[in-house]
This record gives sequence, C-alpha cells and structure tokens, in this order.
Amino acid sequence: MTLRVGVVGGGQLARMMIAPAVEIGIELSVLAEQEGMAAKLAATAVGDYHDLQTVLEFARGVDVVTFDHEHVPQAVLRALVDAGIAVHPGPDALQFAQDKLAMRAKLDELGMPQPDWSAVSDVAGLQRFLDDHGGRAVVKTPRGGYDGKGVRVVSAAAEAEDWFATLAEDARGGALLVEELVDFRRELSQQVARRPSGEMSAYPVVETVQRDGVCAEVIAPAPHLSARLADVARDVGVGIAEGLGVTGMLAVELFETTDDRVLVNELAMRPHNSGHWSQDGAATSQFEQHLRAVLDLPLGDPSPRQGWTVMVNILGGPAEGGIDERFAAVMSAHPDVKVHTYGKDPRPGRKVGHVTAFGDDLDDVVYDARAAADFFAG
Amino acid sequence: MTLRVGVVGGGQLARMMIAPAVEIGIELSVLAEQEGMAAKLAATAVGDYHDLQTVLEFARGVDVVTFDHEHVPQAVLRALVDAGIAVHPGPDALQFAQDKLAMRAKLDELGMPQPDWSAVSDVAGLQRFLDDHGGRAVVKTPRGGYDGKGVRVVSAAAEAEDWFATLAEDARGGALLVEELVDFRRELSQQVARRPSGEMSAYPVVETVQRDGVCAEVIAPAPHLSARLADVARDVGVGIAEGLGVTGMLAVELFETTDDRVLVNELAMRPHNSGHWSQDGAATSQFEQHLRAVLDLPLGDPSPRQGWTVMVNILGGPAEGGIDERFAAVMSAHPDVKVHTYGKDPRPGRKVGHVTAFGDDLDDVVYDARAAADFFAG
Repeated sequence: MTLRVGVVGGGQLARMMIAPAVEIGIELSVLAEQEGMAAKLAATAVGDYHDLQTVLEFARGVDVVTFDHEHVPQAVLRALVDAGIAVHPGPDALQFAQDKLAMRAKLDELGMPQPDWSAVSDVAGLQRFLDDHGGRAVVKTPRGGYDGKGVRVVSAAAEAEDWFATLAEDARGGALLVEELVDFRRELSQQVARRPSGEMSAYPVVETVQRDGVCAEVIAPAPHLSARLADVARDVGVGIAEGLGVTGMLAVELFETTDDRVLVNELAMRPHNSGHWSQDGAATSQFEQHLRAVLDLPLGDPSPRQGWTVMVNILGGPAEGGIDERFAAVMSAHPDVKVHTYGKDPRPGRKVGHVTAFGDDLDDVVYDARAAADFFAG
Repeated sequence: MTLRVGVVGGGQLARMMIAPAVEIGIELSVLAEQEGMAAKLAATAVGDYHDLQTVLEFARGVDVVTFDHEHVPQAVLRALVDAGIAVHPGPDALQFAQDKLAMRAKLDELGMPQPDWSAVSDVAGLQRFLDDHGGRAVVKTPRGGYDGKGVRVVSAAAEAEDWFATLAEDARGGALLVEELVDFRRELSQQVARRPSGEMSAYPVVETVQRDGVCAEVIAPAPHLSARLADVARDVGVGIAEGLGVTGMLAVELFETTDDRVLVNELAMRPHNSGHWSQDGAATSQFEQHLRAVLDLPLGDPSPRQGWTVMVNILGGPAEGGIDERFAAVMSAHPDVKVHTYGKDPRPGRKVGHVTAFGDDLDDVVYDARAAADFFAG
C-alpha cells in the first residue's frame, strides 16, 4: 500500500513537497485553488477549500490531509476530523496560527518569551498602549495577514482608525493585536518537526533577513549565535510544538534582542521560507520532514551537510522575459548553486523562486547565493 | 516560456528526473509504456514507442525528447529528427548503445581500451575465438540485453548454439559478439554529461559491485584508485562522449584489470544506476545534469559533497508486505540515510528502490547503507 498525503493548497510549498514524495515513494495529491498553480503537477483536484464537500471528497483518497497554508476554516477542519480523517496539523493547533491574539494568549500561558502585547478594541485602548510603550508600537490584524500584510507600525492611535472601523463592521466584533516595538539585533527562525505520536526534531536555528516584511535571505545556521541563545531558541521551538500540539513542521520566527534575549514574533505550522535552505543544506529537507511527520513516520536527520548554507529568494523576477531565460546565465556563472523556481509568473515582490549556495566559507557562500539570485532580478 | 522536456519511457529513470525538473522549474512529460508505471506522476501519454505517430504526437508538446531507455528504434528516432524535433541523445549516438558490435567497432576506431572481441556468426568462429583465448569467453547478443540478460560465459562454442540458431532465423542475419574474459580486480563506472553545443562534465569515477549481472552497490568515488587510472577513466569517458556524439548523460562501465588497466565493458546513454549516488552525494545529481545537458543549458558541478557516498540497490523488496511497511523501521534505525523507492511492486531480482548514505568514514558509510537496505530484503 503506497502511503498517500493530500495537500490542501497548490502554492510553492505544496510544489516543494513533490520532489521528496517522489523520492521516498509517497503518493502526493494536491487540492489546488485554480488551474496552473505552482503545484499543478500533483494537483488531482481544483476547488475551494472553504467548501466542506470539496475538501471531504479530496480527503477520501488520502491517508492524511495537510496544508500549503493556514487558511482552511476551523469549521472545515473540525468536520474533517469528525469524519475520521487524519488532519495534520489539526484544528486545535492551527487556531493559534490563524489568530494572532489566541497565539499571544497561549504563549503567555506556556511562559514563552514574547514582546509586550495587548488586545485593543478601540483607538483609546491603542493610545494607552502607545503611551505605555514609548509612543510607537506594531498593530496587527489578528487574522489573514502574511508577508507583512496586516502589520503596521504606528506612532499615533489614529493611524489604525481604518482597521478599527473594519472591526466595527464585523458582526463577530473583535480586537486588534498591538505589540511593543522590539529593539532587535536581527531575526532568527527555529524550525521543529513533530509527529502525532510525539517525536520531535529541531533544525539548527537560522538567521533570516526581511525586506519590506518579506523574507529575503536565510543563513543556516545563524552565524555568531551564542550557544545559550541557540539552546533557548530550540527550547522555545520544542516547547511551542508540544504546547500547541503542532504536527508536521513548525516555524517560530524570533527576534534576537539587543539585550541578548529571543522573543517570539510569528508562528507558521507548515514548511516555511526560512527552511528552504534545508532542501540542499540539510540531511533531511523540511519538505521530506513534513511528509514524514504528518504520516507519523520516524523523523530524519536535520543536521546541516556543511558549514554554511545561504538561501536568497527570487522576488519579483525579471522585468522582461521569463525566469527560464536567465537559467543559462546563472548556471554558467554559478555551476555549484542550486536554482529553484516555482512555475509562477514574475510580478513585483512576488516570491517566484530561490537559490541556495553551500560551503565552508561563509563570505563565499553569501556572495555566491546573492550573485546567483541577482541574475533573476531587474 | 517554461522549458519542456519529454521523456520516452516511464521507468524509474524517468521518475527520478521528476524531482530536479520540479526544483529547477522544467516541465517534464513522460510517454509511458502503460498505466501506473514508476514515472506515472509525469506521464502525459501512454503508448507504444515503436509507433512513430505515437512518439511524434508526444514530441510536439516539448522542446526536446530524451529517454528512459535505449530501445526506441532507429527508424522512429530518425523520423523525429527529420520532423525537426530535438532528440538527445540522437540516433547517431544511440546506435552504439543499441548494437554492441557497432559499439566495439567504433571504440576500436577511437583507440579506446577494451577487451579483445570479435563478431562471430557460427559455432566454428566462436570456437576459434575460444581456442585463442584460453578456452573461455563471454558471448553477448548485440541487441536487447541489459542487467545480465543476453550475456553468457561459455567454455565451448556449443553452449551458444541456441543463439546462433536464433540468428539464422533472423532475416537480417548478423553475428554474436564474443569478448575475452577479462581478469579484473573490480568494476568501475565513469559518467560524463555532454551538451549539444559541446560542453562536457565528468563525475568522479565510482566502484560498482554487481551481483548476478545486476548493479548491487556503488561507492563514490572509487576507493584506493590511483590518480593515473582515475585520469584514464575520465579521458575514456570524455573521449567516448565526444567521439560518439553523445548528448545527455553517458555511463561507461569499466573493468579495472589486475594489471592496472581500465577496459570498456558497456555503455549507457542515459542516467545510470551507477550514478544514483549523485542524487544525495553530488552538488548536481545525474538527473538534473541530464536535463540541463539535453536542454543545452550550462552543466552543474559534479563534485562529491562529502568524502564518501554509498548507494545500495533494493533488489526484489520484501517477500511479504509492501516497501512502505518497512519505512518506519529503516527511518527509525537510520535517520541519516536517504531512501528512494520507485513505486514498483516487489518481484525477485527487480530493482524497486535504493538507499544512499554519505559521510567521511567509508566503513561507517558502507555499513549504514547496507544495513538500511537490509530492512527492505526478505
């Protein structure tokens, strides 16, 4: 009996599960939002993941349902579970990735280090938080934000007035999340895989460089990180995976503060951009690890295969011509760099691929990865 | 414009092109012999590759046609070329992989080191060769043999009488190939990639261990090989790729003789079992390299990523239950070993998958790979 994994969502994360699925011998199928998406090769169905019947029908042909994103509604997730379908990560865990206020409250309960935060339901409440935190803060919509969307740095409560107005129109009511502006040295990401039966495996913590709220570059492992902070990051990742009951891959985005603490910024319960380095740089890629985890198979070795791996995103892609037309130039100049593209049309700021370089000299590896990615820009 | 490669043949070699195609962003399609084959995920057509119309129709949707095997008839290959379709490797090269007598004659012409050989069309001719070569020799049918089929060690000409009888029935007539029995220390394999525009790239020469005429194990690079013989092997590989006009991957199977020579045993013009180590062990896998070569893209770095990589074939698979049922055991015992399976039903002697292990201590790596493969046996 071939093991069958069904992925809801046809984006690049689903696409990048195809290679390890084919290599191990797992049958991967994808419920895509539309035709021609990044994961089209494995798409066995096209439909709306908000529609229970669509998802139920898709789920009947697989052993476990997992996800390309965290947007499947709780009602659909819970109906799948009620129908006896294995869903990983499950709704109890995913609620904390779907609602940043629920996430902050749960992390407090678990004693995880995080920025000061508050739920604010009106301008006055936000202004009080601002007054208590030096006059500036980060306001976030609890739901639906990603890659910098739904996130705003404000220095006056009035700057979030439109969001409060939207909240007022929402029958469910609700609040915005406000967080202190953290004085951070850099951003890190800690990934952990967890099986339904409990086994966990932590990747080395990596440094992530964001531009305009989007991940631009990852260095694995994070350079010059103290052993103490690396241990804290791992413990935070493992603690959250266990405390929230995550199954599959978890990414914990962290701030490394100027006073040598790590604070939890965001969570993602799926393979994550900060782990793409592992495709070429780790003994087990995050995509293989995710498949193993959701199938409750023993986890693979997450160790780096060499001193350094650097991943640089291809954002937007060439202004003229397709990505493929740059292949010859980049491959000729960088025969040792690995090129990954997602079959998506270039569009400003859109993630359309990434490159990875690896080796034992960090400066060389960073240079190679950036230089190779530059061939796809402009 | 996405680059499109069409593969004729739906076996495991086509299957193993899927992962790098998805990663780079090449659209791979496969003309499979039947439904449900190893490469079924990329199969866009099912049909008979002996039928020109079937292959022509398949070829119309791709930029280049390449192969999972070397069995497509010359007439079909030449008609594709005449129709203006890019075919790599092309018919002029493939004829030498399809006819071992033509191959031996061509290698003589190129001055390549090879065993004494002769074309023999009757028992008397074979007996003369035997008498001149110590009374034992290897007889091969020039066409259609692989994995030890069509190969027989004889010590009397009468032992090939049935094959001569078959020849006599064949309207085309023809001859058998007879080769001296080489006194060899071990077998090696040299792989070379070559682009239509001429660029070539050689992998490190590897040691291959055959059992019952089938590749069982590969150690990359070949241990304890003198630098001189490694150079000769590379020169032979490069010379054959160029001399025969091979495009894509070429594998040259070699004998390392007890008197320190290398002699050409067999050729394969496609990714080859002796190169599966490169999926996990080289900066560029032979499958990615093949795609780059047939698309005339710059070739990738074929360097090993660590000291040693060992590949062990899974032959036959478990007598009871499927391969997948062994996953948990092997993954638990060997989290650092890479498992590859081909989606094929286990059958005695059939190649249904392989495992690779890598590291800097050869004994450990050999042990790990063999121990992991053992989980799939018996």
